[in-house]
Amino acid sequence: MEPWTTAPAGPSSAPEMPSPGGNPVGRVEEVLAQFFMDGKLRAAATDPAYLTLWEALEQAVAGGKRSRPQLVLAAYQHLARPAERAAENAVLLAASFELLHSAFVVHDDVIDRDTVRRGVPNVSGRYRQRALRDGADADTAAHAGDSAGLLAGDLALSGAYRLLRRVRTAPERRERLHDILDEAIFASIGGELLDVELSRSPVMPTPERMCRTARCKTSVYSFEAPLEAGAVLAGADSSVVAALTSSGRHAGIAYQVVDDVLGVFGHHSRTGKADWGDLREGKRTVLLAYAATRPEWQHIAHLIGSPHLTAAEAEHIRRVLTDCGARDHAISVAEDNARRALDFLEHDGVPSPLRAELTALLQGVMDRVRPE
Amino acid sequence: MEPWTTAPAGPSSAPEMPSPGGNPVGRVEEVLAQFFMDGKLRAAATDPAYLTLWEALEQAVAGGKRSRPQLVLAAYQHLARPAERAAENAVLLAASFELLHSAFVVHDDVIDRDTVRRGVPNVSGRYRQRALRDGADADTAAHAGDSAGLLAGDLALSGAYRLLRRVRTAPERRERLHDILDEAIFASIGGELLDVELSRSPVMPTPERMCRTARCKTSVYSFEAPLEAGAVLAGADSSVVAALTSSGRHAGIAYQVVDDVLGVFGHHSRTGKADWGDLREGKRTVLLAYAATRPEWQHIAHLIGSPHLTAAEAEHIRRVLTDCGARDHAISVAEDNARRALDFLEHDGVPSPLRAELTALLQGVMDRVRPE
Repeated sequence: MEPWTTAPAGPSSAPEMPSPGGNPVGRVEEVLAQFFMDGKLRAAATDPAYLTLWEALEQAVAGGKRSRPQLVLAAYQHLARPAERAAENAVLLAASFELLHSAFVVHDDVIDRDTVRRGVPNVSGRYRQRALRDGADADTAAHAGDSAGLLAGDLALSGAYRLLRRVRTAPERRERLHDILDEAIFASIGGELLDVELSRSPVMPTPERMCRTARCKTSVYSFEAPLEAGAVLAGADSSVVAALTSSGRHAGIAYQVVDDVLGVFGHHSRTGKADWGDLREGKRTVLLAYAATRPEWQHIAHLIGSPHLTAAEAEHIRRVLTDCGARDHAISVAEDNARRALDFLEHDGVPSPLRAELTALLQGVMDRVRPE
Repeated sequence: MEPWTTAPAGPSSAPEMPSPGGNPVGRVEEVLAQFFMDGKLRAAATDPAYLTLWEALEQAVAGGKRSRPQLVLAAYQHLARPAERAAENAVLLAASFELLHSAFVVHDDVIDRDTVRRGVPNVSGRYRQRALRDGADADTAAHAGDSAGLLAGDLALSGAYRLLRRVRTAPERRERLHDILDEAIFASIGGELLDVELSRSPVMPTPERMCRTARCKTSVYSFEAPLEAGAVLAGADSSVVAALTSSGRHAGIAYQVVDDVLGVFGHHSRTGKADWGDLREGKRTVLLAYAATRPEWQHIAHLIGSPHLTAAEAEHIRRVLTDCGARDHAISVAEDNARRALDFLEHDGVPSPLRAELTALLQGVMDRVRPE
């Protein structure tokens, strides 16, 4: 259910989530490597078992695509005055967002009971496997996995604050950056909760509530906050910061809706997950929220969330979702948000190269659901 | 498994955990109330379901005894020069530790699969009950409870950072306070992990490893860090800060070991939990770690951690633990740590009233296992 990472890693993912490009993402890797070296040394001094948890978290962080750091760095680099530029601060800020992302991913996997992420066992999965190897029964092993995932996520969350604290800038900017991080955490936890609660409820949420969930869960910490924070650190005018934040908000919603469409209509090779996993989980999406308002809903309502959903039933649902207009509706919601995102980038204070980068990124997102 | 809260709330707990007394704990309540008012308003603006999570967290925080804030405030008030005193900062720092405590308690309950804390349903328990009322099966309801507990704990952890950030003091003290919080989180997560891992392992840990676990899990964030942070904010000499930190470390270990002894030998009315819950869980303690090194261990090893342990079997275990010297050993470990804690308080720079308060507190802890 976490969005960016549903795109496959590696070069093939370029058309789906193009890099803003030209950013010192390599330095982000170094900062993260240093963070883990320090953590592992301290953990090893505590107990060998603690070192293992740090290694598991490091592996989880290693799998990320660094999309959020790239947004932070793009905003910062294009907006900072050359004289004021202190790239190291932007790198720390960017790395902080990556740890925040990892915290949410690891905790989201615990909540979703996922044990695999990007094709390899995640933190919970590794601990679960180990417990099974040690002879634990399935329930005990799952519990060992969840406990490790919970604790690893806490480490990552704390790490995000820790890296942000190392950013050296004027006190008011610093406060602002911390406010942005706090707000991103506040929104994301709310979004995750809504995701859980809406999936649990037999009543389909309204399309508006689904959009609010998408915004909270994905958009704020993945798009809005990284752009806002990069711009704030760069000392950009408040109107530019606001324009980028608003653009990020709509880009994030577009991204989530596209991801939801691909979660139902996408192919395994593109999304990196089972074709009808979202349908089997009964994941609440704008797609289903719209379909639930249509008379055709009665033909599929009983199948949504069925743990034994077959390929044929999934195909039937897809046909109904297409025929009742849900697919078109979802794509139009995504297109509408993408358009608004582009509109906000028209602000005079947004430098053209930044506008071009963000436009290309958005284009890449939308191309995933546009007819070829 | 979380220590301080095993003592019952209310006036009857005074002999077990005496308040350092005379501190503006009331202001801590106000700061926490304000924190939740702000959070609930923002949550309600997001979605009614999010408000419910905030309310559940607020209830969890309301049940605390404010032991950590009291230590922060005791150290601060007795060490700050009158001219430098800015009690509001100490109150914020104290409240931050209470939220940190809540984060650990809520996450610990998820890990331990506990649904009740201090006699009332905890965050997980409330969400689980609600799901059951809504017709969910037991597994789904448990999962809904765990998910809510995980997210509520994240909110509390983030809240601890948020309140600490509001402390206004010299930059180097501020950095130091953040380091203390980070270190407390680092140690506590490690301690919690060790607790989980050791319980899972069929091999009984060495007594040394058990002490290390107790220190990480309990002592650092419950004793060492609050005393250290209060003293740092007060601007105390580094040797005084070190003495208080070391004293807190040993006091914390003593507290944990006493709690472990009471978890096996205590009565329901005193510990607030089932008499043989720890034995049934197979909780690793200094008591069991010592017993495992004795020949008598073979008579009880198969019973430890048995989910169907009977009262008679528990009584048998208690007798063996007493006869093989495990009980006396554990009490002597606690006494030894309590003595060291007192020794560190003899530092000239520790003001007598602070020494008296902390000594009384430690006395109260030890009285719980001393013969009457």
